[in-house]
Amino acid sequence: MSTLVFGHKNPDTDSVCAAIALADLKKKLGETITPAIQGELTPESKFVLEKFKVAAPAVVTSFAGKDVYLVDHSDLAQSPDDLGEANILGIVDHHKLGDVTTSQPLECWIWPVGCTCTVIKSMYDFNKIEIPKDIAGIMLCAILSDTVIFKSATCTDADKKACEALAKAAGITDTQALGMDMFKVKSAVDGTPVRELVLRDYKDFNMNGKKVGIGQLEVVDLSILDKVKADLEKDIIALKKEGGRHSVFLLLTDIIKEGSEVLIASDDESVIEKAFGATPKNSKVWLDGVMSRKKQVVPNLEKAFA
Amino acid sequence: MSTLVFGHKNPDTDSVCAAIALADLKKKLGETITPAIQGELTPESKFVLEKFKVAAPAVVTSFAGKDVYLVDHSDLAQSPDDLGEANILGIVDHHKLGDVTTSQPLECWIWPVGCTCTVIKSMYDFNKIEIPKDIAGIMLCAILSDTVIFKSATCTDADKKACEALAKAAGITDTQALGMDMFKVKSAVDGTPVRELVLRDYKDFNMNGKKVGIGQLEVVDLSILDKVKADLEKDIIALKKEGGRHSVFLLLTDIIKEGSEVLIASDDESVIEKAFGATPKNSKVWLDGVMSRKKQVVPNLEKAFA
Ligand SMILES: [Mn+2]
Ligand SMILES: [Mn+2]
Repeated sequence: MSTLVFGHKNPDTDSVCAAIALADLKKKLGETITPAIQGELTPESKFVLEKFKVAAPAVVTSFAGKDVYLVDHSDLAQSPDDLGEANILGIVDHHKLGDVTTSQPLECWIWPVGCTCTVIKSMYDFNKIEIPKDIAGIMLCAILSDTVIFKSATCTDADKKACEALAKAAGITDTQALGMDMFKVKSAVDGTPVRELVLRDYKDFNMNGKKVGIGQLEVVDLSILDKVKADLEKDIIALKKEGGRHSVFLLLTDIIKEGSEVLIASDDESVIEKAFGATPKNSKVWLDGVMSRKKQVVPNLEKAFA
Repeated sequence: MSTLVFGHKNPDTDSVCAAIALADLKKKLGETITPAIQGELTPESKFVLEKFKVAAPAVVTSFAGKDVYLVDHSDLAQSPDDLGEANILGIVDHHKLGDVTTSQPLECWIWPVGCTCTVIKSMYDFNKIEIPKDIAGIMLCAILSDTVIFKSATCTDADKKACEALAKAAGITDTQALGMDMFKVKSAVDGTPVRELVLRDYKDFNMNGKKVGIGQLEVVDLSILDKVKADLEKDIIALKKEGGRHSVFLLLTDIIKEGSEVLIASDDESVIEKAFGATPKNSKVWLDGVMSRKKQVVPNLEKAFA
């Protein structure tokens, strides 16, 4: 029976590419293993896989009875609903340690770096296995995506070093241009249903017993979102109600201006003031310099909810 | 402020030596860091540190406000009571993934091998840092201890390979003899208070909401324990009552015969039958081939309690 490796719900490019890369590495180490995704590809991920001619993993949502590796998450809320019936062989991640537990020893590589693919690059090196050209390409894109082309507060020297080596292995000479091409695809909103935009990079968190959803849209210029912003505001209010959530926050991140406008749907808007010291107006607030959900938004909100 | 690195409560040789080794490695990587232990050294650990002339870490039980690394555990029940007020920088371990969580990204090296020191050996290699002779010696002893001189079901090829390299680095030519010397110290019970024997290698677990304590005494011959067995049986009944526990199990492991006699104090002895298919008599049962609490006893008991 094949082991499955997959990232979080609402897969981003790191979750997709890390699953593909870890499957490649583990296959070369003798395991029978297949990458999977928990939901449809984003336009960005599609662009990345097509650019390097890598096949998309199948969408799988049930893992009962399976051996599995988790990448890019260790939170039950971001895992398959039946994860408890799967046998977790390992976790490769770069987030805070979540509430996934196991009843058997397992293999965890979880490092405080900008992207899961940076960790997997080290795993290839550790095992002295060469990274194929196409896999190097998609790993490079995953790091550029997660670190917002090295601009995110989560970006470390290890990420930059990994990108240098991966660009060489993938035959990419202009990493910056590749990153901008990718973010232009990510920025495109025309013709996309509003709910799909809200969920494009969305995660639910348990903050002190409250269900809190945080989505993020990264664009090369906030004005791209002007036409849809009112609809986004309406939709996060709907999403909050549907799931019995305490709050839904949508970060509209301008990767050039390096900050985020937060759209707020919350039972208690004061958590935003508590978390960031900025006062929302009309359920919106601009947070200068805030680009990373993981490193800047989630920890501050968790403190505010505590 | 110095970061602290420590293993689980009732520290075994791995918890002590892994803390010392990780502190050495991280110091060489530029961190200000000190090893600590959560309780007094066992006679075995004392023997190991004295043999290689390594200073014992200080006993520390409060970590509020500190930066910390955890070694050899990821369970809250085995962590300091105020761990929630510490900032966890990382975890190096070889057990199942426990219920410790963090609010910040961290560094986890958790591998399904026989001993934390096997993982730390790889971390030295990964960082291309040489292991000092004395530290290599105590790491070697930790692996021999955790794997019961390679006889435990938890022992992997990685453990054996690490020991080979560590023995060379420590200038040890007869690894087997070193292991037997250490286990003879561990086997000695004369003059030791009964409660100290019960707690020598003891851990509390949360099994489906029930508090379950499991201790283990490893000896080179079970007959060594004949004189104290009746007192051990009485004491685990007392220990069960004191802590409001559902059960306390004490494994008397014969490392030569390769099996364990389990002394049972439980509200429901049938969990042992459910877990191992063997029927207790007079609150005792012999489990042939069972030597590893982590790999054989805990997973089976967790299923029986589920
Ligand atoms: Mn990621
Ligand atoms: Mn250990």
